[in-house]
Amino acid sequence: MCRWAAYIGEEVFLEDIVTAPCHSLIAQSHCAQEAKSPTNGDGFGLAWYGERPEPGLYRDILPAWSDPNLKSLCRQIKSGLFLAHVRASTGGATSRANCHPFISGRWSFMHNGQISGFEKIRRRLEASINDDLYEQRQGTTDSELFFMLMLEEGLDADPQGAVTRATGRVVAAAHGAGIDPQLKLTAAFSDGTSLFAVRFATDGHAPTLYTRDGETGRCIVSEPFDREGQSWQAVPPSSFVAMTPDEMTVRPFQPALAQLALAG
Amino acid sequence: MCRWAAYIGEEVFLEDIVTAPCHSLIAQSHCAQEAKSPTNGDGFGLAWYGERPEPGLYRDILPAWSDPNLKSLCRQIKSGLFLAHVRASTGGATSRANCHPFISGRWSFMHNGQISGFEKIRRRLEASINDDLYEQRQGTTDSELFFMLMLEEGLDADPQGAVTRATGRVVAAAHGAGIDPQLKLTAAFSDGTSLFAVRFATDGHAPTLYTRDGETGRCIVSEPFDREGQSWQAVPPSSFVAMTPDEMTVRPFQPALAQLALAG
Amino acid sequence: MCRWAAYIGEEVFLEDIVTAPCHSLIAQSHCAQEAKSPTNGDGFGLAWYGERPEPGLYRDILPAWSDPNLKSLCRQIKSGLFLAHVRASTGGATSRANCHPFISGRWSFMHNGQISGFEKIRRRLEASINDDLYEQRQGTTDSELFFMLMLEEGLDADPQGAVTRATGRVVAAAHGAGIDPQLKLTAAFSDGTSLFAVRFATDGHAPTLYTRDGETGRCIVSEPFDREGQSWQAVPPSSFVAMTPDEMTVRPFQPALAQLALAG
Amino acid sequence: MCRWAAYIGEEVFLEDIVTAPCHSLIAQSHCAQEAKSPTNGDGFGLAWYGERPEPGLYRDILPAWSDPNLKSLCRQIKSGLFLAHVRASTGGATSRANCHPFISGRWSFMHNGQISGFEKIRRRLEASINDDLYEQRQGTTDSELFFMLMLEEGLDADPQGAVTRATGRVVAAAHGAGIDPQLKLTAAFSDGTSLFAVRFATDGHAPTLYTRDGETGRCIVSEPFDREGQSWQAVPPSSFVAMTPDEMTVRPFQPALAQLALAG
Repeated sequence: MCRWAAYIGEEVFLEDIVTAPCHSLIAQSHCAQEAKSPTNGDGFGLAWYGERPEPGLYRDILPAWSDPNLKSLCRQIKSGLFLAHVRASTGGATSRANCHPFISGRWSFMHNGQISGFEKIRRRLEASINDDLYEQRQGTTDSELFFMLMLEEGLDADPQGAVTRATGRVVAAAHGAGIDPQLKLTAAFSDGTSLFAVRFATDGHAPTLYTRDGETGRCIVSEPFDREGQSWQAVPPSSFVAMTPDEMTVRPFQPALAQLALAG
Repeated sequence: MCRWAAYIGEEVFLEDIVTAPCHSLIAQSHCAQEAKSPTNGDGFGLAWYGERPEPGLYRDILPAWSDPNLKSLCRQIKSGLFLAHVRASTGGATSRANCHPFISGRWSFMHNGQISGFEKIRRRLEASINDDLYEQRQGTTDSELFFMLMLEEGLDADPQGAVTRATGRVVAAAHGAGIDPQLKLTAAFSDGTSLFAVRFATDGHAPTLYTRDGETGRCIVSEPFDREGQSWQAVPPSSFVAMTPDEMTVRPFQPALAQLALAG
Repeated sequence: MCRWAAYIGEEVFLEDIVTAPCHSLIAQSHCAQEAKSPTNGDGFGLAWYGERPEPGLYRDILPAWSDPNLKSLCRQIKSGLFLAHVRASTGGATSRANCHPFISGRWSFMHNGQISGFEKIRRRLEASINDDLYEQRQGTTDSELFFMLMLEEGLDADPQGAVTRATGRVVAAAHGAGIDPQLKLTAAFSDGTSLFAVRFATDGHAPTLYTRDGETGRCIVSEPFDREGQSWQAVPPSSFVAMTPDEMTVRPFQPALAQLALAG
Repeated sequence: MCRWAAYIGEEVFLEDIVTAPCHSLIAQSHCAQEAKSPTNGDGFGLAWYGERPEPGLYRDILPAWSDPNLKSLCRQIKSGLFLAHVRASTGGATSRANCHPFISGRWSFMHNGQISGFEKIRRRLEASINDDLYEQRQGTTDSELFFMLMLEEGLDADPQGAVTRATGRVVAAAHGAGIDPQLKLTAAFSDGTSLFAVRFATDGHAPTLYTRDGETGRCIVSEPFDREGQSWQAVPPSSFVAMTPDEMTVRPFQPALAQLALAG
């Protein structure tokens, strides 16, 4: 299980969210409190939006706590929309290509969770995506592949629908392979304009998700990065969150799994 | 284009072959003389056979010339059969998983060459190998995938036949994708008992290959690692080489490409 | 605080000590039980003795748990005398040059502990060692410098005396700088023939140290790597341990600090 | 010998200078044309000024040509004043701490050249700088140490004088050690407001240096990054360059070496 944090609002230094708070994401890389494993030392990544349509991407395989480049970048770079992730591998090797966020065009995506039995359905799912997307695949993780399924399912036009249909394809692939579909999906993603998140698990036990409205903007995180404030709101399981600088909506996210399986 | 060197014979320190000679593989990482590009700085790797049936594997993404670990390992480790490679990427990212040699069970494999138009036939070839092999795939290179084709085509029972049939599958995939099949294949591989190599290109212009019988054993290399001796023998294009400590055979390797295409 | 393990005896695969046991050093890199910090993810290192007088050295800055090279090397390499270390930085940057063990000629050294106030006495100590040793200094840690003090104080001729006198120089440097001397020193070192260790702290609270006599040889470790066996012996604070394959001696190590300070 | 490029002027994407030109610094990392060695693959670094008084710093040990992070950062980050460097080691290990630029407070510094016989005068020079500066020293290079000498010699108040006096200290240290003083110094440095450079060698053979006035600002480089334009001006040996967005001055830099040696 990993930890992540994302922000949308006025431009702030990445530092203000990623490294400065007392229980910042960097601190969580060392000692997360709500994760199955306290250590998230298998690499990290940042995607941030600036003047280009596509995001910047900085990923490395060191633990986040020991990378001086990360500290300097967070201190210098300002952005009004960014995603940051520290990784605890559930399978894939520790390589840059397996670090989150993943990007494609103007989209970025990061994930806390996993597809159980992924090795049994990986071929099936990979074979199902189109050549252009497949060529963008750099690593071996379930998360990167799920992002590609979302892109193929129309992320541009209908974000929630795309996640629903991508979930359906995983469920269908599991049924097709004769295994029980098990997906844990607490993920954030952005097109550079809005920030989206989903909290869902096929077994109902989805990793935690919190939001906060601050002075300069909104945060959405795996776990709060400070403990004093009362301002963090837990997002209920089976939710889909859409944020702009101006508003936030939380809608139910409850794919009809049986149906999806049939549809797949 | 990459550079590589392999050895079979009495146990020697890896250093004697890999780092000590005046135009050693390490020197070639900086200034190869018979390669298209003089710099082979996109990672390196070693596979060596010791007391285990499977080989040891050490790969990293630094240039070989700047890795103190490599120097120390080559100075300490003795082996009677090993493969060493310095990489100049023709496409895949610089990651450990894309560094040669690749290993599977007791087999190791390294390659200088490339499959042209790989991005157009990668899906087709990946889809054609079985699940067990596919799950071992860690990187994104054409070389690793060619190794898997060889394994699936019966490398254990018939090494030359396996390479012939793997070549045929690449040719057939290219035909299937409507592109001209182009493969450059100067590769070495071993099961821990014999050392094999192939020099072949669909266009007849295969990367160079040389052998030498020395006092303690036989070397086979991309380019000689010293220049004074007259002892290096150029292996002709379209050859298959099999070496044991006791003997070396060089046979023609000339897959009937039209036929292969049909067979594929 | 770091974790380490060392072995002397019949040749065994490094794996048997470093990676295979249930609470192996690799496991301790993730969740040490007797350390101040459970995570030792700031790099690792191996020094092992083979056929050369000087040891082999393999160090990298990844967490030990995520390095496939380490796993392969430990599975292949056999040695009758080796040191292995996982690092939790108390100051110095995460770089290969700051990873333990350190080596010089045939000597190797690794350390769990620290010199408090090191930044105030570093210049003084560095200025006190001779040019030849100083030129070997690659990193910035207190541990590497302590090793050099030991070498200068005659490690070859009198290991315990050399550690005593090196301790004295640290104490004297602290007094010279007007600060309270504080040194924690649970360290192992070897010349390729014997294995030595020391457990000492100026305040009496030295990091733990355990030994075990096994079937093939002796281990000395920061914390036991299995929990079932009753066979681990805690080494008392203020001890100096000398091991050969045939015998082990534990002697008091209690430098007369006031005296040392004067002597320094 | 290394390659570097620096820019001052209107804010531009780092990409426009560092990665996009046909013979960009990244291209020069692979095949420099005016350097002793064509390959500059021993790490790289960027220092850029944004909204903070101190510069951002991004350094890594991979060859610049193979780092996707570098490409993304250069594509995203805009700055009106930055320094970029690709390294070909003349001695120091390949580590992040040995990569240029070096920074201290608001100053940044990078260097192409070397102090010959550095190992014989390193101690003397290190001992001569004050504790605060010494504590900032992270690596082992002659370049970083020269930067510290400049800082100590009053870089803030009198940049040219500080370089002159730092040069004098190196010359004096060489004389003190009984060796012939040999310094090659083609360096750039900045305080975030002006951009300075020096081209000097004790033997008159200083590495090349070029400037160009462009539409958005001024560049100063080891070698031109395009070849078509006639706009590059070679800076003569023994010169000191000071640039602001508005003007550029080139003055003689010819320390009176004998005198300096006495002064030192």
